Amino acid sequence: MERIDKAKVAFLQEVVEREREYRHESEMASFGESGEEDQELVGIALMGAEGDVAQAGSAEQRFPLESVSKALTLALALEDVGAEALFARVGMEPSGDPYHSIATLEEGEMGIPSNPMINAGAIVTTAMIRGRDGKDRFERLRDFFRRLSANPELDYNRAMFEAEDQDLNRALFYYMRSHDVLVGSEEDLLVPYLKQTSIEMNCRELSRIAAVLANRGCDPVSGERLIGEETVRIVLTLMFTTGMYDQSGRYAVEVGMPSKSGVSGAILAVAPGRLGCGVIGPALNEHGNSVAGLRLLEALSKRWRLGVFA
Amino acid sequence: MERIDKAKVAFLQEVVEREREYRHESEMASFGESGEEDQELVGIALMGAEGDVAQAGSAEQRFPLESVSKALTLALALEDVGAEALFARVGMEPSGDPYHSIATLEEGEMGIPSNPMINAGAIVTTAMIRGRDGKDRFERLRDFFRRLSANPELDYNRAMFEAEDQDLNRALFYYMRSHDVLVGSEEDLLVPYLKQTSIEMNCRELSRIAAVLANRGCDPVSGERLIGEETVRIVLTLMFTTGMYDQSGRYAVEVGMPSKSGVSGAILAVAPGRLGCGVIGPALNEHGNSVAGLRLLEALSKRWRLGVFA
Amino acid sequence: MERIDKAKVAFLQEVVEREREYRHESEMASFGESGEEDQELVGIALMGAEGDVAQAGSAEQRFPLESVSKALTLALALEDVGAEALFARVGMEPSGDPYHSIATLEEGEMGIPSNPMINAGAIVTTAMIRGRDGKDRFERLRDFFRRLSANPELDYNRAMFEAEDQDLNRALFYYMRSHDVLVGSEEDLLVPYLKQTSIEMNCRELSRIAAVLANRGCDPVSGERLIGEETVRIVLTLMFTTGMYDQSGRYAVEVGMPSKSGVSGAILAVAPGRLGCGVIGPALNEHGNSVAGLRLLEALSKRWRLGVFA
Amino acid sequence: MERIDKAKVAFLQEVVEREREYRHESEMASFGESGEEDQELVGIALMGAEGDVAQAGSAEQRFPLESVSKALTLALALEDVGAEALFARVGMEPSGDPYHSIATLEEGEMGIPSNPMINAGAIVTTAMIRGRDGKDRFERLRDFFRRLSANPELDYNRAMFEAEDQDLNRALFYYMRSHDVLVGSEEDLLVPYLKQTSIEMNCRELSRIAAVLANRGCDPVSGERLIGEETVRIVLTLMFTTGMYDQSGRYAVEVGMPSKSGVSGAILAVAPGRLGCGVIGPALNEHGNSVAGLRLLEALSKRWRLGVFA
Repeated sequence: MERIDKAKVAFLQEVVEREREYRHESEMASFGESGEEDQELVGIALMGAEGDVAQAGSAEQRFPLESVSKALTLALALEDVGAEALFARVGMEPSGDPYHSIATLEEGEMGIPSNPMINAGAIVTTAMIRGRDGKDRFERLRDFFRRLSANPELDYNRAMFEAEDQDLNRALFYYMRSHDVLVGSEEDLLVPYLKQTSIEMNCRELSRIAAVLANRGCDPVSGERLIGEETVRIVLTLMFTTGMYDQSGRYAVEVGMPSKSGVSGAILAVAPGRLGCGVIGPALNEHGNSVAGLRLLEALSKRWRLGVFA
Repeated sequence: MERIDKAKVAFLQEVVEREREYRHESEMASFGESGEEDQELVGIALMGAEGDVAQAGSAEQRFPLESVSKALTLALALEDVGAEALFARVGMEPSGDPYHSIATLEEGEMGIPSNPMINAGAIVTTAMIRGRDGKDRFERLRDFFRRLSANPELDYNRAMFEAEDQDLNRALFYYMRSHDVLVGSEEDLLVPYLKQTSIEMNCRELSRIAAVLANRGCDPVSGERLIGEETVRIVLTLMFTTGMYDQSGRYAVEVGMPSKSGVSGAILAVAPGRLGCGVIGPALNEHGNSVAGLRLLEALSKRWRLGVFA
Repeated sequence: MERIDKAKVAFLQEVVEREREYRHESEMASFGESGEEDQELVGIALMGAEGDVAQAGSAEQRFPLESVSKALTLALALEDVGAEALFARVGMEPSGDPYHSIATLEEGEMGIPSNPMINAGAIVTTAMIRGRDGKDRFERLRDFFRRLSANPELDYNRAMFEAEDQDLNRALFYYMRSHDVLVGSEEDLLVPYLKQTSIEMNCRELSRIAAVLANRGCDPVSGERLIGEETVRIVLTLMFTTGMYDQSGRYAVEVGMPSKSGVSGAILAVAPGRLGCGVIGPALNEHGNSVAGLRLLEALSKRWRLGVFA
Repeated sequence: MERIDKAKVAFLQEVVEREREYRHESEMASFGESGEEDQELVGIALMGAEGDVAQAGSAEQRFPLESVSKALTLALALEDVGAEALFARVGMEPSGDPYHSIATLEEGEMGIPSNPMINAGAIVTTAMIRGRDGKDRFERLRDFFRRLSANPELDYNRAMFEAEDQDLNRALFYYMRSHDVLVGSEEDLLVPYLKQTSIEMNCRELSRIAAVLANRGCDPVSGERLIGEETVRIVLTLMFTTGMYDQSGRYAVEVGMPSKSGVSGAILAVAPGRLGCGVIGPALNEHGNSVAGLRLLEALSKRWRLGVFA
């Protein structure tokens, strides 16, 4: 892992500053689906060797993980049931379709989602996590997220969870259940998925989780193993090929770090063996990725050659 | 409307006899999805002018309507809300996809089913029927089916309704609700749809309903108007273009009668201005249509030139 | 067949007049793909019993048939090789896709077009017409069109044929040839297809051809048989289910006459047993159908109950 | 770059031996599309630091590159016109569809292929290579391949080029030309694509090209720069996300080396900064990838941790 030196801290400040100016000048209203969040919010944090941290902008601002959680849930499911059992029920291929697509479930093997980074795939992944029931399954997930982020208070946003329209996810759930890809109730299998997407974090915590992934699964501060090495390898690979919705291919070329984005505007980005990064920026492009996040990460990647093939 | 003369009765006996022989000789096991029903069952009934009836084979055997009910539900929905309101929420185009397809809901106008003869479309159609709640909605439908069939005892098969796996229909329901095509609960909107597919009839009753449609909406015996003329016109047109699943085009060429089939092996077939026909034959082909039903109707259509363009 | 009486003639004048006023008031520029043709042009002709004719507007204006020719080519191919041979290479199902779609060729049976009314299907249909080579094949087609229209001078518009970009049709041709649905050269198989879409007619001639189809294949004036009865039955059925591009279902409900449209703005419409109709109106809607044509035919159909199920 | 030590040489022998035994015992006939090639052929070669080579099996056997060439053509096109111009005409996203699919061209931006590793994308890529005409374009490509492989005799297999059925590629070509993605003739744009897929190599030469890519674009022997660093970065990224047909995602997880496969059974595999690898094994699985190749590369990757995230 790399040290986060003063040059890195300074560059972080610089790019966030530049991004803010850019935002003032541009038409925020033209951005996609985002709701009433503060569209001008931008935050970023890095964590490197021995837990060195750098942050800039609103790095302490809390936000729901949304799809970012899919990468972590995949990690726990792999630890719980192993790759063979997991990939009997969810594929590993990029789908070329939007993350919420139900049409892809009708192609190829009926009801088997293309990969764990689309909604249908993450529902299956969550359902495979060990647990007596939905409550237990969610609590094991939350404990895992707490260990990774070193924040024992981490929890989901109940108001948000209750307010959200879940009909599309219900449709995915019942479609897969009709094909016996899932066996169990909404309460036991779907609810834990929905809750974990509402777990809240800030950029600093996100950067710590990214640093664990960058550090082959070990806590960058204590050195304690939190995720198995083989699990990390699989998770990073799938983040690289499918982590940025239907923009994953372009992002791999332009940024090149295994990453996972969410519609809250969060991005978890990993430079394996070097550092972890967490970004927030709620304004989204048409693919559901953070506009500011993409720009910040591209700037960092280019400056420090953080891309896997750079 | 035509008289059902002795020649017709004799030909009916002849084709059913021929079909039975054929069935004995063939590999029934090779037929598609059908369950444990008596695969050798074949029945047919015709009704013509003044309620003349002819029947052959197991024409008194009761069976669930399954998708045949979609044509009747469409009729009641049109009477209740009119064509304009109905077709704002469901299309009129053949989809080229199987009846249970969810993928088509992601094309074109999001969540709008292609037509009322596929599952998604029939769920919307049922949901638009007037009613305080699901129970009321179903009862109005059942009353309508009772009037059409002249059987005041008609009801749904509760055991079958409860036993069936409804997850695929739930998936369609929630998908459409997520796009605001539907507003309401499973109980109020989906359950009446599921119940009406379980309503049981026999061929004689089916032929009476077909005769009402053939007779521009009037009871062929009493002359009483049961369905509006404009509604009949629309229902017959959609039966012709989309009534036989993804085999509708071929059936229009080879048989040419506006018809609606169900996976129970039932077919409702109409020769406008001439006669109505009900058929049962549980063995299905790969499109979900009754193998025997197709053969019987093709024979009748060819012999008596029952096709619309014959 | 019906007589074309004075009331019919008067109504024709009335609807064309109304259409013209409407056109003046509306934004013609908003209409779809049409080129530099006179967007205000409207013409219509009817032919009934014994060759009675009525016409209004620019019924003598010549235009290329474009896709209207698909219905006639299908007729000749059926006469030449029979239904069984023809439908081994082209389907009978509505596709739910635009007429120029190539994607549908990758579904179901690879390379088999859904039906003869989309481009791919019509290329196959033309290729099956008997002929030593492309020239012979086209000449037999032209002779057939000449007999049907009673115009021995009928020919294709060479300038238009040479000017048109044929790459999309070439793509369809080579895709099907790669799957052995077609065997032969562009010159022999594709060129006759392209030429026949450029054959020019006027509404009067179009109405005569429609009248032949309405009259079970016999010339309404001389009574001579020009097309076999069985061929007429199949052609009318496919016109009804697939003749109006991906608006065929709605048109069947709203107009209800077996019809075939072309992107020149022409429509051939048949009221079986009653009369034939030819319309021109170059402004197109987003499905590729004549805006004026749809409105005129709906008016006629409603006034005289010309729809098949009316 | 790594040294190719004795342990590596021994392991190579071992896995090829094991593969051969396996092949004798298995049902070769069950493998997919491959033709009359010697299905038992297996060969592999590695090249590391300073041009160290190890090889086993039929590493001198010559075979056409087929789709393997797509990666190299992409490299030359990027050098010729730059990433911006290239990616205006071809995407960077995995498509989830087979490499020969034409349907994907109808999605999203009409006529723009998903990525340069499917046929349509590689046709565009080849067309963008600088050249006065098709001959010149091909010769520049062949010269590039010759420099990379250090074999100045390299050429395409004329008999094979002439024998192959090119109708599917013609369909892709004309479809894209109809959408103005391509401007030019078959001779100038398509023929050079077809010829370069027929260029013949052996495993040793393939491993040298892989070693150039592993060595950031410099010849591992002379150190001479053959490809720009930025080009190498992009090519490796796209090989990783899209290089193994619709099995790219699984391969990234199980093998993890940026690779490109062809239906001749060849695979070019790169361990960046370490070594290059060329494999041949003509028996293909249902995705079009070499069965032996996948097994050999997985064994090597696991033994030496060659995967990018290992």
